[in-house]
Amino acid sequence: MEKREGEAEPEQKEEEEQVVNPWMVSAKGGGKIDYDKLIDQFGCQRIDQSLVDRIHRLTGRPPHVFLRRGVFFAHRDLNEILDAYERGDKFYLYTGRGPSSEALHLGHLIPFMFTKYLQEVFKVPLVVQLTDDEKCMWKNLTVEESQRLARENAKDIIACGFDISKTFIFSDFDFVGGAFYKNMVKVGKCVTYNKVVGIFGFTGEDHIGKVSFPPVQAVPSFPSSFPHLFPGQDNLRCLIPCAIDQDPYFRMTRDVAPRIGYHKPALIESSFFPALQGETGKMSASDPNSAIYVTDSAKEIKNKINRYAFSGGQDSVEKHRELGANLEVDIPFKYLSFFLDDDDKLEEIRKEYGSGRMLTGEVKQLLVEVLTEMVERHRRARAVVTDEMVDAFMAVRPLPNMFI
Amino acid sequence: MEKREGEAEPEQKEEEEQVVNPWMVSAKGGGKIDYDKLIDQFGCQRIDQSLVDRIHRLTGRPPHVFLRRGVFFAHRDLNEILDAYERGDKFYLYTGRGPSSEALHLGHLIPFMFTKYLQEVFKVPLVVQLTDDEKCMWKNLTVEESQRLARENAKDIIACGFDISKTFIFSDFDFVGGAFYKNMVKVGKCVTYNKVVGIFGFTGEDHIGKVSFPPVQAVPSFPSSFPHLFPGQDNLRCLIPCAIDQDPYFRMTRDVAPRIGYHKPALIESSFFPALQGETGKMSASDPNSAIYVTDSAKEIKNKINRYAFSGGQDSVEKHRELGANLEVDIPFKYLSFFLDDDDKLEEIRKEYGSGRMLTGEVKQLLVEVLTEMVERHRRARAVVTDEMVDAFMAVRPLPNMFI
Repeated sequence: MEKREGEAEPEQKEEEEQVVNPWMVSAKGGGKIDYDKLIDQFGCQRIDQSLVDRIHRLTGRPPHVFLRRGVFFAHRDLNEILDAYERGDKFYLYTGRGPSSEALHLGHLIPFMFTKYLQEVFKVPLVVQLTDDEKCMWKNLTVEESQRLARENAKDIIACGFDISKTFIFSDFDFVGGAFYKNMVKVGKCVTYNKVVGIFGFTGEDHIGKVSFPPVQAVPSFPSSFPHLFPGQDNLRCLIPCAIDQDPYFRMTRDVAPRIGYHKPALIESSFFPALQGETGKMSASDPNSAIYVTDSAKEIKNKINRYAFSGGQDSVEKHRELGANLEVDIPFKYLSFFLDDDDKLEEIRKEYGSGRMLTGEVKQLLVEVLTEMVERHRRARAVVTDEMVDAFMAVRPLPNMFI
Repeated sequence: MEKREGEAEPEQKEEEEQVVNPWMVSAKGGGKIDYDKLIDQFGCQRIDQSLVDRIHRLTGRPPHVFLRRGVFFAHRDLNEILDAYERGDKFYLYTGRGPSSEALHLGHLIPFMFTKYLQEVFKVPLVVQLTDDEKCMWKNLTVEESQRLARENAKDIIACGFDISKTFIFSDFDFVGGAFYKNMVKVGKCVTYNKVVGIFGFTGEDHIGKVSFPPVQAVPSFPSSFPHLFPGQDNLRCLIPCAIDQDPYFRMTRDVAPRIGYHKPALIESSFFPALQGETGKMSASDPNSAIYVTDSAKEIKNKINRYAFSGGQDSVEKHRELGANLEVDIPFKYLSFFLDDDDKLEEIRKEYGSGRMLTGEVKQLLVEVLTEMVERHRRARAVVTDEMVDAFMAVRPLPNMFI
């Protein structure tokens, strides 16, 4: 009994501070997530300017806005991936989505927008896992409903512009088995129940489907789980772009990998996209007014931003002109820092709005324009994604052009 | 916390008495298993003479020696299967083996000999699960070694005489996925960790591969796990012949089945085949002298029985003539009661040996003859099982003759 309690202890301490895991993001005292502290707690590294510069140099392309602005702010072993790339070795990308809802919001799009950039500039293959089994278990959806949502979400993912010759999208319900299942068993053998309690906070009243799931999310990190994609390339390295709440899965995976003869996957991790109401956690799918959805109309976007986007501006115009906006808490400015690609323009807003020369209404107006254009572009792209295209992306197939 | 302890309590009590689960068979105080008590503890039913007679009547064939002698002594819902059969409905059989060793002993053959009889007299399909994933996890074998043993064991199973047009043998490593995996998730959702702790005695130091396994053994009880075998027959009932140590898996399965819209599988359960050294548990694969293997030569069989088979005869011929053999503990007599099909002959031995007119040496001599013939017959049958035949039994295929 003592050993069990001892093992869980390091993670217990975290709980007193802030809790970030795949099912809960909760800051200390309801405030903002302390990302510096999170990096310490999780044991990952911060992405610094020299690393951004290195990516710029290696790819010959300007770094993605999410890199320049620190949206993707943490990593594990990214330098090893870049070392390998520099030597002429390829790697592959692995990301995923739990298909719990039909409509995606902007926060959901962030890892896919960034992954598309990575695929494009490094010219590497990508596997996208749709964890319909996870959502069937956690959200108590039927198997059929989870699979339906997985296909709907696949359309949004495809609409982000992935290269079909280099991309394999799979649903766990369709794909688990064979080499993938063998790796699940290999991983499961290396992780005790006490360990997953420490990492994920499971309790005895949780069902064993949940306890069985972490290996399912772990094994796409290993190329041998996809013998049809990566034949004879069991040494291929894997880079996982994801939000940092998924880090627990991959801490576990990295712990296990060398014990079963595999490379540890590398990670590149994002902060959370804040709710319209303010930056205290992730957006919530249960409150439609906390987020902009890719299905929202121009009118809805305008209305949500004007009504709900938390402003750091002052109560009166006079006071605002005098004190300026508090950019630390201002959601319109925060959203622009995610999606306004123009660095000079953002810098101008920072100065003008921060000093009070620009008003909240003007910033919101700009944000409405930026988001409306982005959402409209996504909607147009998704409208032409057919069921046949989904089938093609999800077909278990050799990908002869994987490394071209 | 109280609820958790409360839930485990009923099984805790059993531990003070006798422990029977898939990994441990231990009688109270090292004595004989009390099967009447086990039936009470597990909540199954005894197979009485009227049930044996009913099977005789329905099949028009003499009941198998294992039924006549009470080797298969317990059941769950067997009458419901027979009711359905009498109405003209079919059912299917499901049994399995954990491939932990290359050579099978007689105890391993018992469920397969009995299952072959059931398939023959009821003319029903059979699925045989080789739990190579389980043995990879519990015995710490590599995936490859578990799969190799599964194929070797499949040859012994095929040698028992199953009808290839009605029999599907599968390895979990090959077969888990698709509809089978979907049912695993459905089952996993219905069973808490506390529940499996109560049923199987897992601890926090056990790895999560073990915790994930019970649904794998559960779902072959559901025809929808085999859509290629039983298309559109999701209502087909399942009868599981097995040793009673497997009952915990199927208690769990029967608990879950109605909650996910499936029939509870029925069971027909055997007692344990005793070790040569005496009836205190199952035979042990780790002590080659505790068991007769299907690979033993005639000389080895003779030697093992003469040297190791525990005798209930008296210390001296004089005392034996006076008191007779104690048939309750006599292993040669016990083994004959499993394998000597001739009821009159067995009854004669019971009288003659029990009264002291027959000596242990004579009974052992007869047992050597019976087992040598049985083992030789098995060896001849196994020698002609080719890899192609294994492939044919294990091929995922529609079985058009399944119900002919």
